[in-house]
Amino acid sequence: MIAGAERLKVVLVSPRNPLNIGAAARAMSNFGMSNLRLVNAYEVAYAEARSAVNASHVLEASVQFASVAEAVADCSLVIGTASHGHREFQHSMQRLESGALAIKEHLAGGEVALLFGSEKFGLSNEDMSHCHWLMHIPARPEHESMNLGQAVAVCLYELIRDEGQAKRPEPLKERLASSGDLDRLSQYVIEALELSGYVEERTAESTKNKVRRLVHRMGLSERDGKVWLGMLRQVLWKLKTGMLS
Amino acid sequence: MIAGAERLKVVLVSPRNPLNIGAAARAMSNFGMSNLRLVNAYEVAYAEARSAVNASHVLEASVQFASVAEAVADCSLVIGTASHGHREFQHSMQRLESGALAIKEHLAGGEVALLFGSEKFGLSNEDMSHCHWLMHIPARPEHESMNLGQAVAVCLYELIRDEGQAKRPEPLKERLASSGDLDRLSQYVIEALELSGYVEERTAESTKNKVRRLVHRMGLSERDGKVWLGMLRQVLWKLKTGMLS
Repeated sequence: MIAGAERLKVVLVSPRNPLNIGAAARAMSNFGMSNLRLVNAYEVAYAEARSAVNASHVLEASVQFASVAEAVADCSLVIGTASHGHREFQHSMQRLESGALAIKEHLAGGEVALLFGSEKFGLSNEDMSHCHWLMHIPARPEHESMNLGQAVAVCLYELIRDEGQAKRPEPLKERLASSGDLDRLSQYVIEALELSGYVEERTAESTKNKVRRLVHRMGLSERDGKVWLGMLRQVLWKLKTGMLS
Repeated sequence: MIAGAERLKVVLVSPRNPLNIGAAARAMSNFGMSNLRLVNAYEVAYAEARSAVNASHVLEASVQFASVAEAVADCSLVIGTASHGHREFQHSMQRLESGALAIKEHLAGGEVALLFGSEKFGLSNEDMSHCHWLMHIPARPEHESMNLGQAVAVCLYELIRDEGQAKRPEPLKERLASSGDLDRLSQYVIEALELSGYVEERTAESTKNKVRRLVHRMGLSERDGKVWLGMLRQVLWKLKTGMLS
């Protein structure tokens, strides 16, 4: 879905939970990424994730490596994900919003590895020494640590999201109800109110104006206007025949 | 973290998996949301999620409702999440990027409910009839269906992300190495190469120029420059004493 998506390698380092491995693969499939690499994955977890009934093609095509160095050897940009709180790091740290920009630029022509550490400990200092820089998801400082599957989903979403789509929605393209239909609808409502004894003679004119304003404020589409007209016709019929019986 | 976060109600309708309930609550805690509501949650799953050792305060404070109508009764904007593929819906559908904008605007002064359906079936038509409009995460059409916990995390992330942060990173604020240090460093490298027999007399001048260019291209910080100087001093010492012995 994004240019160069096939050049992105998602690297899970020492994952321990098969559900998280599966969830990472699922988010990759959702967002159109397919290169999953695992380093030092807990064997039982990896086997379990691959044998799950809903295992994705991403998981089936995933590749295991013995070390981070081997897993990122073909990449010219290596990014580690980490909590912002880990300030002892010697690396520069970027927020996801700007980090994703840099990743997308690089994917235009080069291979990128995006590393996620284990559920419990994150990336080790050794893991991070293979990274050009680190990236963090802007979570609440009091609870920064995200679930692994959710962290992968959020990072990949930031890569595929389209800023051009972040604008006030266009008005519905549906045709709006004609003034004729709105007048008829107002008339029906007024008639129903009259038959129900809602309209007092003294204030009848102001009530009618109020109803017309209410109806016009509804912003009805042509289609919905026709539906309301039909409903009200039926109500009026019932009001009238009920009064006769 | 965002204005009006306390006015956002995350509503899980008919969730079945305790891990997903827990994951939704965890993402809410990560991103600073605290109002979790459950409608028709599978009792065993809800109890299991609440009793998990890492259950968040969000889950502890969550509230159960018997129907969608009751769960959203105090909200003036109700949004349902759904796959984009579900085109039979009579509702207008927005992408997450624009939908989140509208939600943030509304949160400035009003209560908003954000509905997520069950893992297997999503929101029902009846559930959706309580919604003002629907929203979808822009996933790959061939695999749109996201894991519930990941869908919640991605939607909340879009709400808290800061477009102002999406810019090319500023250059490192660290002071760059002085020209003096770079010259000295180049000199050390050249000396090491000479001692190692790398430099041929015929091309010595061009090799020296090449080394200086290489060193200047490294973009070294002042601190890293000092570290390299120290390392090279040691190497030079070894090269010289090794030759004497």
